[in-house]
Amino acid sequence: MSLVVEKFGGTSVGSVDRINAVADKLIERQAKGEKLVVVVSAMSGETNRLIGLAKEITQQPSAREMDVLVSTGEQVTIALLSMALHKRGNDARSYTGGQVSIRTDNVYSKARIQNIDAERIQTDLEKGRIVVIAGFQGIDEFGNITTLGRGGSDTTAVAVAAAINADECRIYTDVDGIYTTDPRVVPTAKRLEKITVEEMLELASLGAKVLQTRSVEFAGKYKVPLRVLSSFKEGLGTLIVYEDEDASMEAPLISGIAFQRDEAKLTIRGIPDHPGVAHQVLGPISDAHINVDVIIQNASAKGLTDLTFTVPRADYQACLGILDTLVADLGAKDIKGDDKIAKLSIVGVGMRSHSGVANKMFKTLADNDINIQMISTSEIKVSVIVEESKLDKAVESLHKAFDLEN
Amino acid sequence: MSLVVEKFGGTSVGSVDRINAVADKLIERQAKGEKLVVVVSAMSGETNRLIGLAKEITQQPSAREMDVLVSTGEQVTIALLSMALHKRGNDARSYTGGQVSIRTDNVYSKARIQNIDAERIQTDLEKGRIVVIAGFQGIDEFGNITTLGRGGSDTTAVAVAAAINADECRIYTDVDGIYTTDPRVVPTAKRLEKITVEEMLELASLGAKVLQTRSVEFAGKYKVPLRVLSSFKEGLGTLIVYEDEDASMEAPLISGIAFQRDEAKLTIRGIPDHPGVAHQVLGPISDAHINVDVIIQNASAKGLTDLTFTVPRADYQACLGILDTLVADLGAKDIKGDDKIAKLSIVGVGMRSHSGVANKMFKTLADNDINIQMISTSEIKVSVIVEESKLDKAVESLHKAFDLEN
Repeated sequence: MSLVVEKFGGTSVGSVDRINAVADKLIERQAKGEKLVVVVSAMSGETNRLIGLAKEITQQPSAREMDVLVSTGEQVTIALLSMALHKRGNDARSYTGGQVSIRTDNVYSKARIQNIDAERIQTDLEKGRIVVIAGFQGIDEFGNITTLGRGGSDTTAVAVAAAINADECRIYTDVDGIYTTDPRVVPTAKRLEKITVEEMLELASLGAKVLQTRSVEFAGKYKVPLRVLSSFKEGLGTLIVYEDEDASMEAPLISGIAFQRDEAKLTIRGIPDHPGVAHQVLGPISDAHINVDVIIQNASAKGLTDLTFTVPRADYQACLGILDTLVADLGAKDIKGDDKIAKLSIVGVGMRSHSGVANKMFKTLADNDINIQMISTSEIKVSVIVEESKLDKAVESLHKAFDLEN
Repeated sequence: MSLVVEKFGGTSVGSVDRINAVADKLIERQAKGEKLVVVVSAMSGETNRLIGLAKEITQQPSAREMDVLVSTGEQVTIALLSMALHKRGNDARSYTGGQVSIRTDNVYSKARIQNIDAERIQTDLEKGRIVVIAGFQGIDEFGNITTLGRGGSDTTAVAVAAAINADECRIYTDVDGIYTTDPRVVPTAKRLEKITVEEMLELASLGAKVLQTRSVEFAGKYKVPLRVLSSFKEGLGTLIVYEDEDASMEAPLISGIAFQRDEAKLTIRGIPDHPGVAHQVLGPISDAHINVDVIIQNASAKGLTDLTFTVPRADYQACLGILDTLVADLGAKDIKGDDKIAKLSIVGVGMRSHSGVANKMFKTLADNDINIQMISTSEIKVSVIVEESKLDKAVESLHKAFDLEN
């Protein structure tokens, strides 16, 4: 009898009808011999409704009270889903994060799970109950309510799966798996049956926002077999695997192409070069809570250096403002900026054992007359910055060149 | 520095504006030197919205899950009120029932409070914080969420006041105190400055639905000074006092007149009289969860007896049905019924030491040509059943006869 954790997000439980549909599915699964723990999010729209109420009171609500407020969203869902399961004959039990001791640190609104008490869950499972757990929330050591940040229900599901040593953790989403790239850009994009956790992490952080990055990290740490699948469409989705478990896997050269539009690039030129320049420039950017992504520093002639970096396009103007004041302080020459760029990455564990992958990428882009503005690499990924208007063509040509459609 | 528990119901916190108004009031109080604990209900309409969701799923939701569901209502309010207090400079803290260990039995949907952990509340009060507690909810010994039943927030407030030994517990309602009778019937009705807990209990159970009966019982048990006042209008409201604390009080003959419309009366006539007749008739009524109020049994001639009793008018038809089947079983003669009656009661601790109060009531009604159909008495109360159409006249004439308007 396999033990499975299933997670349904806000859209999947967004109405009474949807909740009934989830209950039908669960009862069907249980009849097939699965022991089930279900993690659910707030009904879609509910979290925003609650945040709206808070914002009517104050523009800067305390993080502690915000967590007390928004955690009610999942609590409503667990009660309703349990009722729907009762109606179908299962003696389901609902639990808030606190009730199954999902113990977190006390960083409100982005707490991290430290521990889960699996005993209560296991007792219920032994009685044939489906256990329904509120995602996204926990309690700190003093019993304060915490939340894990948006998308944190994925992390709850993975953490519960690890705690009860589940055979599989299934995350239901609005896509039916992980694709070689976005099918809206490349219609021949193919669903991957399997992907390694490292590739998944690169893809998740690069804009293929199917799973919360932290949940994937968590799954990797505890080697939880994790499957992403659609809550609206039948299918097996994509299974996230761990290399050492599946060393024989014939790894393709690359697994997928991720991209991110809405990027911007800034260059501060002619800075007198001395140790600490990067820190002097990027420190104030970081202090303004702006995430810097790709960074390149070039030593130029005469003891001067240029520093180029990318940020989300929404932060472009703020960055320009910060750099304006820095130019004089640093004795730099000038600033250049471009807010019409995009980032494109090829990801694959196959790169480790195959040379020439990056070169093939560069050649393909050159053949298609696409200029590379910046390059950044990791062990299993090559990212380039290109003109935004050339992005779609770049993705298409790479998808074909790396033979991802077959 | 006095220590006060204040309770605000659903209407008082029914919108962001109302929550802000409550926050203003609390900050003002604190500035005057009061240490404050606030108990709040769900925003008006919220509990019904949640019940509506449950009813869409199933007509018979489990009581456990219902409590998980509806307890979110108060949790939303405590978070929002705390935010509003933060905005006004107080470092308020919110707590769910579970977080301040409002321990109850595990009778879901009508749990009774057994114990409250006052330590956390007191620690916060010492730091100058206003403590905001979710009314109506608690946890059982296994950490399951329970609720106290509708109106249970009053009980929470009284229980918290008892646990922290508060100087006063103030219940804000939509009326500005307890009146000698309903001012809509008798415009000269007067607000009572004080009322004994026994009188309050008689009035509450007789239809003056200002406070939940259980909260008054609880207050009586722990001698919590309890004040009922308006959340919309300035004023001192009515203080509920304990006789032994205030023995010198010049008790008026009667304190108030309560009444209940929507009553019905049933008589089963000519039952062969033997022990157990009342049980045989009223047992099936009680099994149908119908509350029987006034009961009269008269032995008539020839070993026969008549039994008359009153029930809420909504249950009249159901009662007729039950009695119909009983008539034959019992060998009784017939059934008579009247669903156009009302109950009227005069209440006052002064009755204990003054004879003739009941008689004065009967004379007044007779002088006004109002026929008494049934009579029921307790130590501090006389109730009569009259024709519903004569109720207003009866209340008015008694209010005048007992000099309640001065």
